[in-house]
Amino acid sequence: MSAAIGKLIGVGVGPGDPDLMTLKAARILGAADVVAFFAKTGHSSHARTIAAPHLRAGIVELPLHYPLTTELPSCSDAYRDALEAFYDDAATTIEGHLKAGRAVVVLSEGDPLFYGSYMHLHARLAGRYEAEIVAGVSGMSGCWSAAGLPIAQGDDVFTVLPATLPEAELARRLADADAAVVMKVGRHLPKLRRALACSGRLDRAIYVERGTMADARMLPLAAKPDDEAPYFAVVLVPGWEHRP
Amino acid sequence: MSAAIGKLIGVGVGPGDPDLMTLKAARILGAADVVAFFAKTGHSSHARTIAAPHLRAGIVELPLHYPLTTELPSCSDAYRDALEAFYDDAATTIEGHLKAGRAVVVLSEGDPLFYGSYMHLHARLAGRYEAEIVAGVSGMSGCWSAAGLPIAQGDDVFTVLPATLPEAELARRLADADAAVVMKVGRHLPKLRRALACSGRLDRAIYVERGTMADARMLPLAAKPDDEAPYFAVVLVPGWEHRP
Repeated sequence: MSAAIGKLIGVGVGPGDPDLMTLKAARILGAADVVAFFAKTGHSSHARTIAAPHLRAGIVELPLHYPLTTELPSCSDAYRDALEAFYDDAATTIEGHLKAGRAVVVLSEGDPLFYGSYMHLHARLAGRYEAEIVAGVSGMSGCWSAAGLPIAQGDDVFTVLPATLPEAELARRLADADAAVVMKVGRHLPKLRRALACSGRLDRAIYVERGTMADARMLPLAAKPDDEAPYFAVVLVPGWEHRP
Repeated sequence: MSAAIGKLIGVGVGPGDPDLMTLKAARILGAADVVAFFAKTGHSSHARTIAAPHLRAGIVELPLHYPLTTELPSCSDAYRDALEAFYDDAATTIEGHLKAGRAVVVLSEGDPLFYGSYMHLHARLAGRYEAEIVAGVSGMSGCWSAAGLPIAQGDDVFTVLPATLPEAELARRLADADAAVVMKVGRHLPKLRRALACSGRLDRAIYVERGTMADARMLPLAAKPDDEAPYFAVVLVPGWEHRP
């Protein structure tokens, strides 16, 4: 007879507003034995803050601190090796709890399998342990909803682009899509602004900071007087140009 | 003194599993005066079914029946005119309730502003009445979560394509993205299969029917022996090929 085997659960807590968590997420958080969450060293986890009211007293907390607080080129071997070792270690720690028969929740802002760190653990553990995903409202959905901006309709082609792409590549892809969300804006804003102008999309672009927070800031990018932007700012380019 | 003015609220009820509704959606449904929902003539509304347990007794129900049950070419003038008149009439009906000071919830499967019919009402009414959007878990997020399939990571370019596109266009766009979701598969499946093969993505593609329902069906597209597919089937092409 083998002992009871635990369960890995990737839970999306939504885009920021605690009220945009799903009923399922709230229920599962309340029953979890262990809650794991990613955070920068020295920082708290936003997902942990959102989840807190739903966690039972005495739950085991497992903060997973990223090894790098400054950005290395993501294509460098050193960066990849450090991250790989970090995810391996995190998976090993979680596996200890799974072997002990515990239900381990891993928190994700937004949706766990859409640009979320959880998937690194999923890839290492889901084949060998029971795993469940609780889908969440994505960060970008929170942004266009807060802005009241219909983003895509009908046969629109919609695309998500990282602002890290080269300028010509951004411009080409912006011109090629009906609707777009550009992520990781930060220091790339001047380049993104030029790419939007080049692709004829600057006049439709909406700049959003902290989209679903109480201190959200959103305005037409063309009306933004400076090029200061945090890393997590996004730019929304709505489609649906030929609406009935 | 003017009378109290109502409020328009677009509520995403999520991808199908009633438990994937947000806490906010459940709360707002419980307080609404009027609930409106789109449906094909002669059909019930899936969003209405999901919302039902949360609606208070005696709520005014406002079914909005699409005028067309068979597909006309969406580029035809007749199609556009009929839909435009339908949305105008629906907006007028809802406006009557708003003028009477009522809170009118419009239900959307998935997320209201992401390929949802609600946005046609939003475009007609949101400028003149208070309007709020409650973001929801998208249908595609429900699908990749149910499949346990990490869809996009890091600097992946992600795109959403309608299967209605011409074959060469589908193939070009599939080859140009790291990750993709193809919607409205239905009778376009043979063409989509060829486009995936041409773009080198067929071996990664996952076919999904009724992603978050109890009778969900999902399998590698390459292993699907026939080309039968309902309109709402989707094909997922995960990115994240170079994982650390």
